[in-house]
This record gives sequence, structure tokens and C-alpha cells, in this order.
Amino acid sequence: MPLLSSHRMHRLVRETLAAAGLSDAEAGVCADASVFADLRGATTHGIVYIVRRTLESIRDGKTRSGSAIEVVRQGGATALLRTAGVVGPVMGKQAMAMAVAKARAQGVGVVNTFNGNPIGLLGYYANLAAEAGMVGLVMANTSPSAAPYGGTSMVLGTNPFAYAAPAADSRPILFDIATTVASYGKLQRAKRRGDRLPEDWLIDKDGRPVTDPARADEGVMQTCGGHKGSGLAILIHLLTGALSGTTVGGEDTHNHPDPAQRGQGALFMALDPEFFASGAVFEALVEKQIGFIHGADPLPGRTHPIYPGERGWSELDRRQAEGIPVPEEDWAVVLKAIRASALDEARLLEGIA
Amino acid sequence: MPLLSSHRMHRLVRETLAAAGLSDAEAGVCADASVFADLRGATTHGIVYIVRRTLESIRDGKTRSGSAIEVVRQGGATALLRTAGVVGPVMGKQAMAMAVAKARAQGVGVVNTFNGNPIGLLGYYANLAAEAGMVGLVMANTSPSAAPYGGTSMVLGTNPFAYAAPAADSRPILFDIATTVASYGKLQRAKRRGDRLPEDWLIDKDGRPVTDPARADEGVMQTCGGHKGSGLAILIHLLTGALSGTTVGGEDTHNHPDPAQRGQGALFMALDPEFFASGAVFEALVEKQIGFIHGADPLPGRTHPIYPGERGWSELDRRQAEGIPVPEEDWAVVLKAIRASALDEARLLEGIA
Repeated sequence: MPLLSSHRMHRLVRETLAAAGLSDAEAGVCADASVFADLRGATTHGIVYIVRRTLESIRDGKTRSGSAIEVVRQGGATALLRTAGVVGPVMGKQAMAMAVAKARAQGVGVVNTFNGNPIGLLGYYANLAAEAGMVGLVMANTSPSAAPYGGTSMVLGTNPFAYAAPAADSRPILFDIATTVASYGKLQRAKRRGDRLPEDWLIDKDGRPVTDPARADEGVMQTCGGHKGSGLAILIHLLTGALSGTTVGGEDTHNHPDPAQRGQGALFMALDPEFFASGAVFEALVEKQIGFIHGADPLPGRTHPIYPGERGWSELDRRQAEGIPVPEEDWAVVLKAIRASALDEARLLEGIA
Repeated sequence: MPLLSSHRMHRLVRETLAAAGLSDAEAGVCADASVFADLRGATTHGIVYIVRRTLESIRDGKTRSGSAIEVVRQGGATALLRTAGVVGPVMGKQAMAMAVAKARAQGVGVVNTFNGNPIGLLGYYANLAAEAGMVGLVMANTSPSAAPYGGTSMVLGTNPFAYAAPAADSRPILFDIATTVASYGKLQRAKRRGDRLPEDWLIDKDGRPVTDPARADEGVMQTCGGHKGSGLAILIHLLTGALSGTTVGGEDTHNHPDPAQRGQGALFMALDPEFFASGAVFEALVEKQIGFIHGADPLPGRTHPIYPGERGWSELDRRQAEGIPVPEEDWAVVLKAIRASALDEARLLEGIA
């Protein structure tokens, strides 16, 4: 399997998307987000995701280089943004930057975006707030794939949620989940590989677990923690699509028949600790929280508990030193996407073994 | 078991707390919050909770009638409030009113409170925002009782979280959970009754389920959805205690040795949909979301799925018509608390069978 340095992978993503029509600046932001995911081991949202989805989106006319974000409405601490045509990571980065700027002035900033293209790994944007000394929260809606608690129909999205918080010494706490038991990416990968599915991922119309990957399309995803994940997924539909006046859970987002409603909805929030006790006090307490987690007795046979995101930071250190391995199946998807877009494969892949 | 009309129960709570030293206004707010919980069937946070905890808190000097909330810091959309001495529901109601007022001006309001007395059912305060046409979110920290993911030590609180959102025709979506599998109240009740505990509530030092209620004190609570609930509980510690500079998960809240750090921390947030698409559009979409949930196919043998909080609203209708049954064991706790405070039992209970 190919092993790419983060620098070489960044160049590959940037040049591929620039060759497909994005500006260098747009392609660079996409590469930042994608390499961040691949460095952390969040492979489903790395190069395989950003290259394939972005090239498709450009081809379908959903992503158009140079598209501007439209500020539909703005309050002191809030904004509503129409982001049709903007490539996902550029939209996400600008929305979080706006939330951070508002939080700097008002203590909190809440930015709702609609008509959006997919933004990939939510943790990337949450972490941008942590880098600015703030708590960052990001959530996004997706098309129906999960059952509401007590049901067997697809109503709710996998609706991911992420937050990040800066610590005095350690790298940020960085939590990034789907509100379903399995994320969409993990389910697709298991289907592709033919891996047997865990019993709690999918149920069929009779409420029985679907564990055969060949039967996955007969199943509906389950929310995490039963009614608790179901309620969180509903909250995410309300704070994304409903707040922007577009969709709720039960409606197709990315392929909605009405272009005015179409696309992903997301919410970006930043909270500035300077408006509460203080930034320094907050970061010291986040560090203290990490200490209490590390100090907890582990389950038998395990090492000490780790904090949300810590495994990804360790992986990032290792991959920055040793390179990023790209699974063969993902590499094949990247090559196929490059070929389908009639890009100059030889030039883009120059020097990659 | 006694059956009280909501009116009679309200009077009992109000008069009991007023006799113990609260002002009529303070006692009235406590009664509002407590009766709301009992009407919805959230019995663990109803009369048995408010009377016992408040009388104890007055006796311990933690609740002092007439205590004022101190605004430590205030931004356009945020506030940090020291609430030592204020009876919990009065604090919660004022904090949410402040969040709503800020949201009315800025689109969002975030109010962090510390040194607090327990506020009971979080959903009561979230619902106040929904009654004002806003999305309300409330979270609170509690003392260590749950293990962080991968551990067996008590580090995290049960850290409850609630949200409410107004709908065009239906009553608000009202979600109210602990981030542990079982809430603290449910665990205490099962222990008191000697009920066998579900396998996923508690584990012992060896990671094995504790199901014997007599051994419950050897167990540590489990977060809902494994690492997902653990990460949410950590977020709640950060947005409550850490933001106010008091405590994180791993530190005692209610009995912290330092009075400056002692007490519950909470966060009250309101979001005004008028700053996004519009209030009317939002409420119509919340209604649409409810419709999609109701329209989902049910699990075999079940009726249609319901939305978060719907069961509580149905119970509220029934109990308003038929009265609120108080379980014998809870009634005994209420009577014991009244007697321990040397209040005039005969007068307070006049007319109750």
C-alpha cells in the first residue's frame, strides 16, 4: 500500500483539485482538512473522501470555484449563511472563523450554514476554534439513514457532532462522533470489504439485527445509546436544517428536489472562555480534567483511559514521522476518481511509489 | 398511595418551603418546577426531590432565602453568575430568563452559573425557553459517579442534559437525559427498592456488571453509548465547572472543601430562531420533524414512534385530569423531611387523604 509523507499527500490533493478547476487557495484548504483527517487515522474522511467527493461534486456542478458565501442574516452573535457552490472545507473554515470572530466580540458565536457541500471531518473545524483558544462545536445533518427510537424507517441522518477545547499543556480535547452507532463511512467500508457487521449497527423491518454485509441495504442504522442518540440526532436536525428553514430528518439533504433546500446544513459555534472565568483558568482546568481521566483505574488488561481525540494526536505524531499509509482499496478509489475526471495522472502521481 | 391534584401538590410544596424559611415567591418557583416534574411522571425530580433536598439545604445553610445572584461578568451574549445561597429553581429560572433576554437581543444567550444549589429537572428550564419561542439547552455537572471510557474509577458526573424546541401545533420537543445509562435518581430508587440492576448500569473494579442492588456501592456508573456518552459528559464538565473556574470531572461539586468552588455548575443557552430563517418557519419545521417521527414504521408489536418529551406531555394531561399519584416510599420521604424540620405537619397536610 502507498505510503505518503503528509507533505506529498497535501500536494497530491491540492494539485488534483486545482487541476479539476478549484483555485489554489480553495484546493489548499481542502488539502489541509483532508491531510488532518488522514494524519489522525480518520481514513474514511481523508484523501479517499475529499478527492472522490470533490471531483464528483465539481462534475455535477454542485461545487463551483469562486462561489461566494452569502450572508443571509446577521446578528451580533449569529449568522445565517447560504453556501451553495462553495467547496465544503472552504465553507467550513470560513464559517468557523466567523463564529470565532463573533465569540471574540460577544463571548459566543453561532453560525448556521445551508445549501452546503459536504465538509468532511467535523473535528477539523472544531479544532480551529481550539487553536484560537476557544471551545468549538460543530454539527451537521445528513440524509435519512437511521431509525428514530422505536421505529424501523429511515428518518434521521447519521448527524455527526464534534467539539474541541484547548488545554494548558496537552493538545486539545477533540471529540468527533456520529450519533448513530456506526458512522456512515465505517458502514460503507464494512460493506465494501464484506466484513460481518456488529449486531448493534443495523436492524431490519422486523427489528432484527442485520449482520450480513450483503444484506446491509435492507437495514436501517441504529442511533447510539437508544433514545439518547435519537434525541441528539433530532437536536442536530433542528439546529441545522430547521433553523435555516431548509430540511428536517426525513428529507433528503444532498439530493433534495428543490435546489433552495438542497445540500448539507451545519452549525458552527465558538465560546470564548475569556468571557467567563478566563482563558488561562479554563485551559488549566481542561488540563486538570485530562489528568483525572489519565489517573483513572483502567479496565483489567488495559492501559490508562485516554481523553477524546488523544489517540488521533498520537497517530498524527507517528504518521508525520513515518508517513501516511493509504489502504489499497482507498488508493484505487482515488486513482479511479482522477482518471474519471481526465486529469493528468502521471503528473499528479509523480514520485509516489 | 396519596393522589394529589396538581393544585394541592403545588400548595403543599409552596407552604412547606415557605414554612421552612423561603419567601412566598421563592417557594412558588420551587413548586412550579417540582409539580412540572411530577405531572410529567419524572417522579424522581418531583415533590420527593424538591422537599427533601431543599429542607436539607436550608438546614445546612446552603440555601438562604433572599440570596441574590451575583453577575460576575457579562458580555453581549454571555453571563457568568455566582449563585451561592439561591434556592435551585429560582436560580435556574432566572438564569434561563437571562439567556432568553440575551438571545432576544443577540440571537443567542449563554449563561454559566456556579456555586449553585441543585436545580432538579433540567427540562423545566429548557422548556421555559421553548415557551418564549426559542430553543433552550441546559446542562449541569454532578459529583463523580461514572467511569470515563476504558476506566473503572469514578471521575465523571451523571451530568444531565436537556433541550426544548417549540413546534407550530404540538407541544415542544423536550429531551432530558443523564449522560450515564441510568440517572442518579433511578439508581437510588432501584437500590432503595432492592430491584435487580440492568447489566449496563454499573461495573465493578474488574469491569464486571454489578446487578445486585445490595452491591451497588461497589459499582461505578457507565456512560451511555460507551465512549460517546463519556465524551458528552466531559463536554458538560468543561462548559459548566471549567468555564466558571470551579471544578472538572473528578472533583466533588456539592461538598467541595473550598466554598468558592463548591456547588453545582450549570449552563443555560437560548437560541432565537428569529435570527435565522424565522420563528414561524422554525416552528413549522419542528412540527414537520414530529410528523416524520410519527410516520415512521414502528418496531413489531409497538405503536408509532414518539418524539422526545411526548410521553411526558401525555402523562401531564392525564395527571392534570386525574391527579398525581405519589408512591408510598416517596410520600414517606416527604413526611420524614417535614417532621425533621419541625414544621406543622397537620396544617401542611390538611385535606390530603
